[in-house]
Amino acid sequence: MRIVLKIQYDGTAYCGWQVQPNGITVQETIEKAIENITGEKASLIASGRTDSGVHAKSQTAHFDTDHTLIPPDKFSYALNPILPEDIKILSSYLAPENFHARFSAKKKTYEYKMYKSEYPLPLKRRYAVNVSPLLDVEKMKEAAKVLVGKHDFKCFLAANSSVKDTVREIYSSSVREENGEIIYSVTGNGFLYNMVRIIAGTLVKAGEGKISAKDLEKIIENKDRTSAGITMPPEGLTLISVEYEKR
Amino acid sequence: MRIVLKIQYDGTAYCGWQVQPNGITVQETIEKAIENITGEKASLIASGRTDSGVHAKSQTAHFDTDHTLIPPDKFSYALNPILPEDIKILSSYLAPENFHARFSAKKKTYEYKMYKSEYPLPLKRRYAVNVSPLLDVEKMKEAAKVLVGKHDFKCFLAANSSVKDTVREIYSSSVREENGEIIYSVTGNGFLYNMVRIIAGTLVKAGEGKISAKDLEKIIENKDRTSAGITMPPEGLTLISVEYEKR
Repeated sequence: MRIVLKIQYDGTAYCGWQVQPNGITVQETIEKAIENITGEKASLIASGRTDSGVHAKSQTAHFDTDHTLIPPDKFSYALNPILPEDIKILSSYLAPENFHARFSAKKKTYEYKMYKSEYPLPLKRRYAVNVSPLLDVEKMKEAAKVLVGKHDFKCFLAANSSVKDTVREIYSSSVREENGEIIYSVTGNGFLYNMVRIIAGTLVKAGEGKISAKDLEKIIENKDRTSAGITMPPEGLTLISVEYEKR
Repeated sequence: MRIVLKIQYDGTAYCGWQVQPNGITVQETIEKAIENITGEKASLIASGRTDSGVHAKSQTAHFDTDHTLIPPDKFSYALNPILPEDIKILSSYLAPENFHARFSAKKKTYEYKMYKSEYPLPLKRRYAVNVSPLLDVEKMKEAAKVLVGKHDFKCFLAANSSVKDTVREIYSSSVREENGEIIYSVTGNGFLYNMVRIIAGTLVKAGEGKISAKDLEKIIENKDRTSAGITMPPEGLTLISVEYEKR
């Protein structure tokens, strides 16, 4: 049977989601916990990878098991006590038919958090990134709107990515201010590698007055990576939720 | 001359503010940084101690120095690069005449943050404490109001405290919900050792329906420590600000 896990993690201490040779990842930490309780080798597939240092408020993943002693909705209770404090299972349930955490995902929402300060603040630094106190947030709000719709987002493609299809649909894209933070929230049917962090860097460029919302339209149209912004640091990024078709 | 520092710190890694033999404290970390730039032995006096694991959004402290090369308002710039990332100086300035960080303090504001969850959540656990999903927040709001005014708060005195005068004046005391958090905010002319954490535990007891706002009035009146709540964990507590008389 296939079990779905909704997972929250603080990415600070991990080399991202996916198992890799040079450091501990979220995936292997949870796989080991599953193996610990089921006695079976586990392979956990997420809706998508998150990079080193990126957080998830609610990531979705699945694994297959022949273990039948633990009811599907009790895997969270079985796993949480043996998981570290920076990874917890929010809920678990039996996967609907044909469910696949990656291929069945319809929408993802990410948030990128910033705050105005000349230097990183002790109580903000873990989950948000400091930006210049001079940024014009209204300009960032205008620029964020431009991204809504189906576009070829090659301008936001990381240099080391080899993905071919760079067309994605963005359902909502907006900047709000809350608790002294500037929060960029974006929902789409998928995102390119580093795309949200590059969008955040581009919005900062807009807030600095270096590009306008109109310029951003052209940057997208011209697939102009060099005129877009820098890739912002990972700690500001959180995967908020993954949505699947209701059945 | 006397220099005032406004300081933000993440208390997670520290054994509180005050220098002590069994671990690194915020005070000694900043004193060493001051000694590093002035070449003089420094003695840093805060508005009050914070306990092990307690945070400060803005703590106030002062020190005396004969060093004249760094202008008072530039100490923050000189200190921040050599301070660790979990302690930063928000601003520095020349102390007004007769200023003393502790004795001149008129008001302090603390916040205690909680969130409803069966277990600590990875993205909340550092700065807030999980409480039962069944808590009745309206009852907590009612109980919080009872504290306003000048009272003998002996009922909130930690067992190991030897302080004699337990009368304090509370100017505001309220519970609000924000971002999925239950935030208790309290402003007073001073607080007993562990007082805010014991108040938080007492509000949780109110939210559980174990005591009413009326009961809390009696607990205060009767100086009844055993009927008040437990001392809640330090990570939920943050010193928000310290106010001094305007000159």
